[in-house]
Amino acid sequence: MTDDNSNNGVTIMGAGLVGSLLSLYLAKHNYKVDIYERRNDLRQNYREYGRSINLALSDRGWKALEGVGIADEIRKVAIPMYGRMMHDLQGQLSYQPYGKDNQAIYSVSRGGLNVTLMDLVDQNPNINLHFNQQCLQADLVAGELEMLDTQNQEKHTIKTQRLFGADGAYSMVRYALQKTERYEYSQSYLEYGYKELRIAPGPNGEWALEKNALHIWPRGSYMMIALPNLDGSFTGTLFFPYEGDVSFNSLQTEADLKDFFGKIFPDALPLMPDLVADFFENPTGSLVTIKCFPWSLGDKAVLLGDAAHAIVPFYGQGMNAGFEDCTVLNQLIDEHPDDWQTIFRMFQELRKPNTDAMAELAVQNFIEMRDLVANPRFLLRKKIEGKINAQFPDKWLPLYTMVTYTHLPYSVALETGQHQDKIMKKLMKHIKQESDYDKPEVQQLVQKLLA
Amino acid sequence: MTDDNSNNGVTIMGAGLVGSLLSLYLAKHNYKVDIYERRNDLRQNYREYGRSINLALSDRGWKALEGVGIADEIRKVAIPMYGRMMHDLQGQLSYQPYGKDNQAIYSVSRGGLNVTLMDLVDQNPNINLHFNQQCLQADLVAGELEMLDTQNQEKHTIKTQRLFGADGAYSMVRYALQKTERYEYSQSYLEYGYKELRIAPGPNGEWALEKNALHIWPRGSYMMIALPNLDGSFTGTLFFPYEGDVSFNSLQTEADLKDFFGKIFPDALPLMPDLVADFFENPTGSLVTIKCFPWSLGDKAVLLGDAAHAIVPFYGQGMNAGFEDCTVLNQLIDEHPDDWQTIFRMFQELRKPNTDAMAELAVQNFIEMRDLVANPRFLLRKKIEGKINAQFPDKWLPLYTMVTYTHLPYSVALETGQHQDKIMKKLMKHIKQESDYDKPEVQQLVQKLLA
Repeated sequence: MTDDNSNNGVTIMGAGLVGSLLSLYLAKHNYKVDIYERRNDLRQNYREYGRSINLALSDRGWKALEGVGIADEIRKVAIPMYGRMMHDLQGQLSYQPYGKDNQAIYSVSRGGLNVTLMDLVDQNPNINLHFNQQCLQADLVAGELEMLDTQNQEKHTIKTQRLFGADGAYSMVRYALQKTERYEYSQSYLEYGYKELRIAPGPNGEWALEKNALHIWPRGSYMMIALPNLDGSFTGTLFFPYEGDVSFNSLQTEADLKDFFGKIFPDALPLMPDLVADFFENPTGSLVTIKCFPWSLGDKAVLLGDAAHAIVPFYGQGMNAGFEDCTVLNQLIDEHPDDWQTIFRMFQELRKPNTDAMAELAVQNFIEMRDLVANPRFLLRKKIEGKINAQFPDKWLPLYTMVTYTHLPYSVALETGQHQDKIMKKLMKHIKQESDYDKPEVQQLVQKLLA
Repeated sequence: MTDDNSNNGVTIMGAGLVGSLLSLYLAKHNYKVDIYERRNDLRQNYREYGRSINLALSDRGWKALEGVGIADEIRKVAIPMYGRMMHDLQGQLSYQPYGKDNQAIYSVSRGGLNVTLMDLVDQNPNINLHFNQQCLQADLVAGELEMLDTQNQEKHTIKTQRLFGADGAYSMVRYALQKTERYEYSQSYLEYGYKELRIAPGPNGEWALEKNALHIWPRGSYMMIALPNLDGSFTGTLFFPYEGDVSFNSLQTEADLKDFFGKIFPDALPLMPDLVADFFENPTGSLVTIKCFPWSLGDKAVLLGDAAHAIVPFYGQGMNAGFEDCTVLNQLIDEHPDDWQTIFRMFQELRKPNTDAMAELAVQNFIEMRDLVANPRFLLRKKIEGKINAQFPDKWLPLYTMVTYTHLPYSVALETGQHQDKIMKKLMKHIKQESDYDKPEVQQLVQKLLA
């Protein structure tokens, strides 16, 4: 097997979300694309692959989908979530909107989104999709990839002149780059794992919790969240320490588990008929942040998505950041046609500071979600920020808004957020309740702080 | 080939400085030690191995050597350096002592020190030294090491129940640990390389520069340093950008090189008869910081020295930190005889925060050496710090002193140094010249700041 070696042949490793979307962009530029995917065709044998089952799609992701004309199709199967619904230890609810008016993030099925993308890929005459092809080794300079056909266990070599590594956090393309001289690399894990736990629909197939919200059970050092599915169920995810007094390690028996959920997630437990099987049989996912540099080698190869910048999921930006990679790469291909050295160099220079910033924001947001959202002062502060935003829409966008509903570079969002955090700390000293914001002296202070 | 599999058999990978010293400590505890070294016996064919030719031994290193009774022997061939001698663009000198009285760091030959250690190892009936043995792969759980005899190119397997990885920055033992789940790992390179350049003795074999100093040619964004050797020569090291207007990449011809040295290191150039050959033929070394965790796997294996915490050389603490690892491990073996699980766990918990701190200090010191030491205000500040130290010896040790002349944990040195930095910034606002320190209002401020 060899791929097209003419001037417009390119190879993508990985037919996940980013690899599939990228192939559509490259095909639009009239490149002939071969995509190699380690797994089998998920459409033949529809099942999930251990990774999180639904995702929160937001504006950066939508923009990238619009660029290949499939945003409308996906929108039909996406469920808007307008805010966070917090569940306390007594099952009491509190709500915090994610933005204003109709601003929402969208719960979509990872598998469903991938299937939609793959169907488009299959229909595209410029793209060839090869399944069950595992990359064992890559010689990036020679453009030679040693592949294993996982069905017949036969090895073969493919040649490529342009390789795009969209092969995820444990990327083989990155592994080849890592062996080049003076390579910057770090992998860092949280001491938390995650476990997916299903929340069933109600007796008539209805959503048993508010459908249009992202649910959080914030418990200080850990949390459960849940996102709605189209079938009336929710996918719950428990983010939980591996070790310690209250941890995956400490919950060893069915009785322990039920006792724990009954005390800690009392309103969720009755909605989780499969809890015991889910908890003890589903894999425990790990939470890694991967940073590396450079992302490219000359005009030969480049990394995108998780392969270049795997982040933790707490800002819902992993897929969105990978999709934004496609948007940026697409622009660069427009601006520097066929000049791959320039395209790859500018791509990594533009994206690296932003994905580094996003990595930091994602880790920070875990603390916000598991702990701060249970704090009335924090919720009050969010309300006040909303008021500032309404009063000074040109001067103040909340951090969550910048990350989720704009296309501002993530690094700008991070810096602006840090600046605003200082302002909010000063302001909140003068605010006990929401109505304090309208007091003349507070208004004067706001004017001064924003000047 | 198999090593001793009785209860007191242990294996060390690497017979460099740390591996050799460690073997002496383990032999003292009556363990039977096998050391495997990738290279040949450097005593048979005495040459340097590309790494820096001399090292600055300071108190942490001396203590570890004293523990195996060889400090006195090394002291005979060590040259004390009592301070820094700065050379400006006109060849003018300025001097800054490293401490008070007789405090010094000691220039020793890396090769000479290693030979001395290996001779001791050879004389020790509890230690077996195996040369030309490259570890290809390690199964830490099974305790199986796949080795290559680099002389006959034959592979063989050795069994071990206790493995000590002292095999340097590119450690194979660490590489095996890296494959365990959720492993914390980072490698980061400076955008500078280093090149060793010889400064010749004078016509009568005398030292052509002040013998008892570490010489620095600080040039802002880069520098050259030189340490004395016993034969009247100095080993110069140029720390220089890889790329850019003034860089290894920009100096491509003999004429470029001589022109550059004539302008930038005018007093050194006449003392460097081998400059052209040295510059174009010696390898360019890279400057890596490696951090990882954990350092051990149960009671099976542990990392020490550069394998666990490679740092940049600017504080002269790389070897000293590795030797201090031996001191700490030795204490733990005393306190928890044969309880290797506890020894390894406590070792990594005690050492990791300290070697992380040292890594940070080492990077910071590059800026001090290449730039700040050329700044009169900085040198004045160092003098004032010396005065504070003399006046309040119980309350104030300069950072350099804590790192170099004490056994305070590196992390304490770093924190205390940061605190003192804040104090010095406040104090220096009131000081224009050295004598200002004695003014009553300044003395009052010092008392207040130190309270």
